[in-house]
Amino acid sequence: MTAEVGVIGTGVMGSNLARNLARNLTGRTGARVAIYDRDVDRARALAAEHHEADFLVASSPADLASKLSGPRVAILMVNAGPATDSAISDLLQVFEPGDVIVDGGNSLFTDTIARGETAAKTGIEFVGVGISGGEVGALEGPSMMVGGTEFAWSRLRPILEPIAARAESTSARAEPGDGRSAQADPESCIAHVGTDGAGHFVKMIHNGIEYADMQLIAEAFALLRGRLGLTPPEIAEVFREWNRGDLESYLIEITAEVLDHTDAATGEPFVDIIADSAGAKGTGGWTVKTGLDLGVPVATIAEAVSARSLSAASVLRSSGTALDGPSTVTSEFEEARDSALDDAPTSAVVDRDTVIETVRQALFTGKILAYVQGFHEIAAGAQEHGWNTELGEVARIWRAGCIIRARFLDRITEAFDAEPNLSSLLAAPYFRDSLNSGQQALRDTVADAASSGVPIPALASALSYFDGIRTSRASAALVQGQRDFFGSHTYGRTDRPGTFHTLWSGDRSEVQL
Amino acid sequence: MTAEVGVIGTGVMGSNLARNLARNLTGRTGARVAIYDRDVDRARALAAEHHEADFLVASSPADLASKLSGPRVAILMVNAGPATDSAISDLLQVFEPGDVIVDGGNSLFTDTIARGETAAKTGIEFVGVGISGGEVGALEGPSMMVGGTEFAWSRLRPILEPIAARAESTSARAEPGDGRSAQADPESCIAHVGTDGAGHFVKMIHNGIEYADMQLIAEAFALLRGRLGLTPPEIAEVFREWNRGDLESYLIEITAEVLDHTDAATGEPFVDIIADSAGAKGTGGWTVKTGLDLGVPVATIAEAVSARSLSAASVLRSSGTALDGPSTVTSEFEEARDSALDDAPTSAVVDRDTVIETVRQALFTGKILAYVQGFHEIAAGAQEHGWNTELGEVARIWRAGCIIRARFLDRITEAFDAEPNLSSLLAAPYFRDSLNSGQQALRDTVADAASSGVPIPALASALSYFDGIRTSRASAALVQGQRDFFGSHTYGRTDRPGTFHTLWSGDRSEVQL
Repeated sequence: MTAEVGVIGTGVMGSNLARNLARNLTGRTGARVAIYDRDVDRARALAAEHHEADFLVASSPADLASKLSGPRVAILMVNAGPATDSAISDLLQVFEPGDVIVDGGNSLFTDTIARGETAAKTGIEFVGVGISGGEVGALEGPSMMVGGTEFAWSRLRPILEPIAARAESTSARAEPGDGRSAQADPESCIAHVGTDGAGHFVKMIHNGIEYADMQLIAEAFALLRGRLGLTPPEIAEVFREWNRGDLESYLIEITAEVLDHTDAATGEPFVDIIADSAGAKGTGGWTVKTGLDLGVPVATIAEAVSARSLSAASVLRSSGTALDGPSTVTSEFEEARDSALDDAPTSAVVDRDTVIETVRQALFTGKILAYVQGFHEIAAGAQEHGWNTELGEVARIWRAGCIIRARFLDRITEAFDAEPNLSSLLAAPYFRDSLNSGQQALRDTVADAASSGVPIPALASALSYFDGIRTSRASAALVQGQRDFFGSHTYGRTDRPGTFHTLWSGDRSEVQL
Repeated sequence: MTAEVGVIGTGVMGSNLARNLARNLTGRTGARVAIYDRDVDRARALAAEHHEADFLVASSPADLASKLSGPRVAILMVNAGPATDSAISDLLQVFEPGDVIVDGGNSLFTDTIARGETAAKTGIEFVGVGISGGEVGALEGPSMMVGGTEFAWSRLRPILEPIAARAESTSARAEPGDGRSAQADPESCIAHVGTDGAGHFVKMIHNGIEYADMQLIAEAFALLRGRLGLTPPEIAEVFREWNRGDLESYLIEITAEVLDHTDAATGEPFVDIIADSAGAKGTGGWTVKTGLDLGVPVATIAEAVSARSLSAASVLRSSGTALDGPSTVTSEFEEARDSALDDAPTSAVVDRDTVIETVRQALFTGKILAYVQGFHEIAAGAQEHGWNTELGEVARIWRAGCIIRARFLDRITEAFDAEPNLSSLLAAPYFRDSLNSGQQALRDTVADAASSGVPIPALASALSYFDGIRTSRASAALVQGQRDFFGSHTYGRTDRPGTFHTLWSGDRSEVQL
């Protein structure tokens, strides 16, 4: 008896993905799922606990190879880094040309490219697949971004498409496990986004956008609390309301859940007993680093990553009590509530409902700009690496299963459907119009936060990005002048092509190089 | 006849450094400078053009080795990357244990660490030295940040100290070439800042701060022009005035020079004919990437790098004309001038002198915060890599010769002299007081720019950084709540130690892990 696919690594993510596969594959073709873990007892426990799935437990990589029908497909669900390298090395010993090794972890895309090159020498296919949606997504349907060759995709698609998340659509939905073929399924949140490392690259950007989205939401929370003195449950209600409009998304939904939760031990709002030092797993930072390598401005994502670092920089923050500024943001939120209306700046922001609506529009505008940055980076990465990544397809597969799933993504898909060669999301009518109608709220919010002392790094960055794009003459001209002065770095002219240098230490005449 | 030091690479930087060495060393001990270039004719031309320096021209690495008295010292002034590797490889063939190879280029510090490890196997010392000051600095006295071992430093110091820039001091200044020994010279802008890659690391941060400083100045320029409609020569006069106060620095000085310069071809202000697309050589981006690796928030430096990318993102900017916002920032600066007073926001910013003073204070406050970030990263890098870097010493050697030289650096040196274990520049009375007296101007400036549509990414980032440090409860608590909800990433509590997780999909009780 053989299995159609093997899963290596039976931690939470691996177990859930294996169960998802078993549930969706077993029924339709009699195919089964093999599982292998270096800790064989852990794999056996998974099989015992979910015996309805009828797992084949392998005792070694060689045993796994023998249990898989060819061409073999094995999905690694192990930690990124050395554990992944070790697992690949094991499989390369026992797999044959044409077999497919999938890395389903959060590997850095350049590692995936390098691993693919190594595997290619053996004729074995190596495919990096970005899997988003956390534990629940792995079990019930993740969003999957697939790299690797067309051949590998043709092998993987019938296996992975049935387990992917499915997004709502106007067309009739196919049911999982209905034995459908590998033909196009526009509702299934999986796509082949390019060769070699493209899958992990796109997943990286997904996470970078996620960092920015979360930070923007946190800033909206800080504003509603600091400026209006609303309680967490009251803010939860605001977020629930927002979730019925343009902002509808998983992150807004769970934010309301978190804000409405009461800590059982203290009876306090849960958000008030959480240590305010944010962790990070690295993918946000990778997005920023890769943006730097590609020369793509992703400042709002960078601010989100930096805000987490700052929150965890306890020594730095310990100096904060000696710093002056408005006292609106204090732990005494009641005071804020009492004084909020008195302190309101001399702008249109004057009453509770107006503030809430202004912050909502600012959040939505900032969110669009974070997506503009992320999609710019995907486009630049695809160009750099020769991937035929369709940006509308990326938005399509993010509509369900993943953390940033949102109504908003339908608009991105529509934008690229209407204009496949769209130079930027900014150039799409919906986004241009949304930005234009939201920019005043973003301005008012940033100005109010600056005056009142609420830190809003991502919102402020988004506004400067917007105004930086808008400006017809960037102050970068002065930077180029400075660079030519101190470092002979040369400059271009607005009135004719060429590269120029002014003899600053000489007679200040200009030379063309 | 032998030479005391060799210079490899006779491009502009190498030639100037060799001439600086020859001028300062030859006189005092009869020592000479050997030069070598793969293009031997180029080296010969340098010797012919500056025959007073009495260079020894080597025809090969082996010839260079034979022309140097032992233990040998050779300084590489070649391009970072493969050219550096190739030159090192050449020297490792012909040098002997105890000889010293110096990399005087802008190498990435991790490359320097790796090269040092390779060299160490041969017993040959490898030292990365960050050299700042551009072409003029190399010739007349650069600021030098030296890595490598104590032994190598003892060899290099008598050679490099005489050619370094010299900062003003209250004590009597020694003259170059006066045959003084290698004893401490507090005015000489050179220091051993740690082992292995420390020199290149500190130089990298120097450049990162430089990016931020230049961007902040460019934003001040944009504000003075966009909000007051001042002409470039008028703004030059403002910068000259600023250069007589706390802001006194090389960058402010050359900004005035650039702004006061008229393009001969058009008769227009020079800054208006420069293409507004800024270039970058990479060190600013390295500072951001390394900050990400170290978990240090350096958002203002990141915004400066991003602003350059954005200025060069022509496709993105081409969408800008369709975006709405205030029209204060236009190419019709005359209009801006006419309407500036009418458009002034309803804050204290109401007249020309007040606007100028507010922008000056905002610039100074932003600059302090950029330095806080840079010094934080140096401290974190030193801790990570085990370098005994003295932060006050770093500020001391940046006081002359380098691009960011400024009066301000005396204050940093004083701060660390007074309190060597200062946790952060923020904790020093001078900087804390300066920030506290400048924060309101920074707020007013950011709020005004947000309202009026002037992109000020670095100033806005600096303010959010300041308020982020100030805030007693960061919105990061909500981010941790979201992360626990969707990814079981766990959280800490404010009221007791430990790691916790809420069973969000279950009964929402809390478990301690």
